[in-house]
Amino acid sequence: MKIRDIVLIGSGNLATNLAIALTEAGKNIVCVYSRTLGNAELLAEKCNARFTNRLEDVPTTADLYVIAINDGMIKEVVDKISNYSGIIVHTSGSIPISVFPNSLKQFGVFYPLMMFSKKNIVPFTDIPICLEANDNSTLETLTELASSISNNVSEISSEKRKILHLAAIFACNFTNLNYAIAEDILKSNQLSFNLIKPLIKETAEKIQHNSPSEVQTGPAFREDYDVMHHQLEMLNAMPEYQQMYELLSNIILSIKHKND
Amino acid sequence: MKIRDIVLIGSGNLATNLAIALTEAGKNIVCVYSRTLGNAELLAEKCNARFTNRLEDVPTTADLYVIAINDGMIKEVVDKISNYSGIIVHTSGSIPISVFPNSLKQFGVFYPLMMFSKKNIVPFTDIPICLEANDNSTLETLTELASSISNNVSEISSEKRKILHLAAIFACNFTNLNYAIAEDILKSNQLSFNLIKPLIKETAEKIQHNSPSEVQTGPAFREDYDVMHHQLEMLNAMPEYQQMYELLSNIILSIKHKND
Repeated sequence: MKIRDIVLIGSGNLATNLAIALTEAGKNIVCVYSRTLGNAELLAEKCNARFTNRLEDVPTTADLYVIAINDGMIKEVVDKISNYSGIIVHTSGSIPISVFPNSLKQFGVFYPLMMFSKKNIVPFTDIPICLEANDNSTLETLTELASSISNNVSEISSEKRKILHLAAIFACNFTNLNYAIAEDILKSNQLSFNLIKPLIKETAEKIQHNSPSEVQTGPAFREDYDVMHHQLEMLNAMPEYQQMYELLSNIILSIKHKND
Repeated sequence: MKIRDIVLIGSGNLATNLAIALTEAGKNIVCVYSRTLGNAELLAEKCNARFTNRLEDVPTTADLYVIAINDGMIKEVVDKISNYSGIIVHTSGSIPISVFPNSLKQFGVFYPLMMFSKKNIVPFTDIPICLEANDNSTLETLTELASSISNNVSEISSEKRKILHLAAIFACNFTNLNYAIAEDILKSNQLSFNLIKPLIKETAEKIQHNSPSEVQTGPAFREDYDVMHHQLEMLNAMPEYQQMYELLSNIILSIKHKND
């Protein structure tokens, strides 16, 4: 089966980026649902679709229903549309496929491993799309759809998807916290965050072709206790950052000695 | 005064990248010193210079002596060459300009804010170079030299340079630790680190044009305690990562509420 008509449930960052990518790939978004009618309308305009804020009003015979909403709301929406006829997928990293009732004929997960923003629409070409489905034929259908927007499609179980999501917290959310702390330290001292942007870029660039454990640098890795002691002192007025500096330095050391 | 003849003291990652950039900009590296003769030779070949492992053998009348060695060795080298005639600079983020004795006529700091590697020679064009000098004329001379390899040159005091260096620990060293932990979590579960590379790239890309504090995402930021609780449980067998997850999530929350 080939997917043509798609109903999009959600109008947030992921929904917006996905809808635009699918539309550009020639897929037909027939309807956008959002609890907030204005948000549904905004996104529907971008993909030439109908819009609604009532689940009862979305078409009941689309080929695919994509649920791209907060994790906590997925179960409720699934239950409300479980008698509709197409494949139903959610797009969450942390919700297992078991959120779908066994009574459903075709269901799955369509998880793009990326951080999206409405303000910044990104091309899907290199974004890993992690798929899971209740049977082979559904998996095949979803694979064909995912491959129409990305070159990086793989089947990932619910268990492994949770692991991926956890790794992403470190690689993305906690990394951004580090950027935010660097910005805070610089701004508190009348220095521009711009000064450090090339270094941030290079740090992310470097691990595209190297294992991060092999390119670790810094005073903790060099076991330069003079610098560490001095930098901890500089953080006296920022006790949370100080505690973080100490813990992360210890972890760098402990990984280093494990690899010795 | 315009700098022509340069003596390079050191042959590590920074020394190598700097020597190549200066040579490409038409500067004349006359001699490379390293405690390890083989290392001095390797780098000297790249910039067509003499090499030595004896400080007594470097030319005593060069225009500039660039000390690019471990922080702990700088003072000793400065003392040994303090009667030579050119400008002496070091390249360290954490050593203040006061490491130079007042008896010296011209001295300063030439600090490129980047993480270098011999394996991966990077262009200097966008690398911020932070300068400090004992007087205006020396600062002018160093500015002209720095501007011949970078478009991003500024005067930064010793105090501010220490701040920059501290911010860089968060933005670079601790960020790389996050990448290493993500890799460890993935590999321990037979998942490829490649899956998360596009996300890492986008996370670094995003803050080139946004303030990181404004693009923070994730379960801690959303105050999604279900996901956080579950992910902490997943880290039961990795107590250091668990402790880090908890601390960093708390800091994300505390920054969020401070900005509320």
